[in-house]
Amino acid sequence: MDIAVVSSRADALEAIFVGALKQRIPKDVTLHFYKDPDALDGCALGAAVALGAPDVLAPLLEKMPQLRWVQSTWAGVTPFFDVPRRDYLLTGVKDIFGASMSEYCLAWVLALERSVLSHANAVSWQPHIDSGLSELRVGIAGVGSIGAAVARAFRPFVKEIRGLNSDGRAVPECDHCFASAERLSFARDLDVLIMLLPDTPATDGLVDAPVLDTLASGAVVINGGRANALDLDAALRAKASGQLKALVLDVFHEEPLEDDDALWHTPGIYVTSHTAAPTDIQSIAKVFVDNLQRYQQGEPLQGVIDFERGY
Amino acid sequence: MDIAVVSSRADALEAIFVGALKQRIPKDVTLHFYKDPDALDGCALGAAVALGAPDVLAPLLEKMPQLRWVQSTWAGVTPFFDVPRRDYLLTGVKDIFGASMSEYCLAWVLALERSVLSHANAVSWQPHIDSGLSELRVGIAGVGSIGAAVARAFRPFVKEIRGLNSDGRAVPECDHCFASAERLSFARDLDVLIMLLPDTPATDGLVDAPVLDTLASGAVVINGGRANALDLDAALRAKASGQLKALVLDVFHEEPLEDDDALWHTPGIYVTSHTAAPTDIQSIAKVFVDNLQRYQQGEPLQGVIDFERGY
Repeated sequence: MDIAVVSSRADALEAIFVGALKQRIPKDVTLHFYKDPDALDGCALGAAVALGAPDVLAPLLEKMPQLRWVQSTWAGVTPFFDVPRRDYLLTGVKDIFGASMSEYCLAWVLALERSVLSHANAVSWQPHIDSGLSELRVGIAGVGSIGAAVARAFRPFVKEIRGLNSDGRAVPECDHCFASAERLSFARDLDVLIMLLPDTPATDGLVDAPVLDTLASGAVVINGGRANALDLDAALRAKASGQLKALVLDVFHEEPLEDDDALWHTPGIYVTSHTAAPTDIQSIAKVFVDNLQRYQQGEPLQGVIDFERGY
Repeated sequence: MDIAVVSSRADALEAIFVGALKQRIPKDVTLHFYKDPDALDGCALGAAVALGAPDVLAPLLEKMPQLRWVQSTWAGVTPFFDVPRRDYLLTGVKDIFGASMSEYCLAWVLALERSVLSHANAVSWQPHIDSGLSELRVGIAGVGSIGAAVARAFRPFVKEIRGLNSDGRAVPECDHCFASAERLSFARDLDVLIMLLPDTPATDGLVDAPVLDTLASGAVVINGGRANALDLDAALRAKASGQLKALVLDVFHEEPLEDDDALWHTPGIYVTSHTAAPTDIQSIAKVFVDNLQRYQQGEPLQGVIDFERGY
């Protein structure tokens, strides 16, 4: 079976499909990768399945008469609605990035506040009762769609959720939002600081010594965003002084972190090797392979778009 | 009206009742506090109302002929069933453990499914991406108020939530509920089995080898309820064979678990020392005062135990 993969990120997709996901691609399936939609050859134009972005694939529909299933790499699929063809299955991608990041942040806060690590290592009865999450103040630095998903995940468990964004605009998932310039008001007495900031000049070192010193004593800091936003030296000093109870780091200036880095061996510092939320392209590849198995087994696909409803 | 408060934590309860809750105790009510059940005097033995732990209060029932209402400080009230007396109202503390139990169960499932323990112990880059919770089928054996709270906590993260209760009655927080007699249908292909069952004759060994064998291969079992419901030998065999990936145990036939117990050192078995859902003494005091107002106004009490059903 031929599958046409048409994407500006065809190289990255190919690397994933011949790498991590290779064993999940059936032997009778041939993937054809194209960066340029004008370069599609006979195999691709005769493919029954296509994977790609709506703006690129929608105009190709009329040239691919055998198409039975199109997997969109975007959540938004409107370009397909502008083409009259309806004799194929269209599947979209959900916001899996937000779900994965929510799991990651909640996993670590729960592990730290409910003594998962110490119970896992215990060799005798440890009846100490943790106070849990219900009195925690949580701040999310960087509340876009991922940060909003993380806020929703924490909502049932904690006392207060603050957001930090460029202009302090309100975000419904947060009790209160602060602009970057108000970062010390944002940070004041936070028990948990979750960093989900993008890498831009405006976020360089945004979480620095003054911010860290403003958190509640014994706070937890989690960086699931980008390394540039955290002043790592200041964070290590705050950890060493006890101002921070724990520092959970997913991202680094240089990745992978070298084996001889002291962070691997510093108590209370947890390195999670950039696994917090898979890059969107990895998630999309995984969604596609899951659906491909269903397609070949004649099972219902996940994320099928209803052309009538438009989603 | 005299009320006997009999508890090893009588001092802490007295501090709450003369402090935060004082204005909610009617003037005609006198609370008598006893740490030692043998020290009860005439006022206490003639009391119409008692507050305390089941193991302490149950043996006192025959010495307190005027008793009309007993408020238990525990969710588990089995000791009262062992005493024949039934001419009084028994109320438990049902609703205050849901939040803590939800944190506990979600903490362990997230820790296991998002590799928290292996990242915490890593000494080199471990970029493996976990598949997370989104495809998990979770079963909750024992869906009363605590189980329903746990189901709500898992809802945003997992694919399916099943409940098990005595008669298979529907519970809105679960996708589908099964009766005890359908326990194998309940268990089929579950990735996570959460046990929150009460200690009654009907739950003895309810989770046994056939149930464990019916779970998905590599399932996680968490017992946050009572020890009697799990056939521990069968669970250890299922863990040893690989049928179970992990076994998280909060409760045991004999507590505390002895230091020389092999469970402390068995990989994939996690002992959490009966910390899943602590007795929150302030919450219990508040439950009692709420019920006291109802009692004095002749309204139905909250959390009344049905002696026939056993919960």
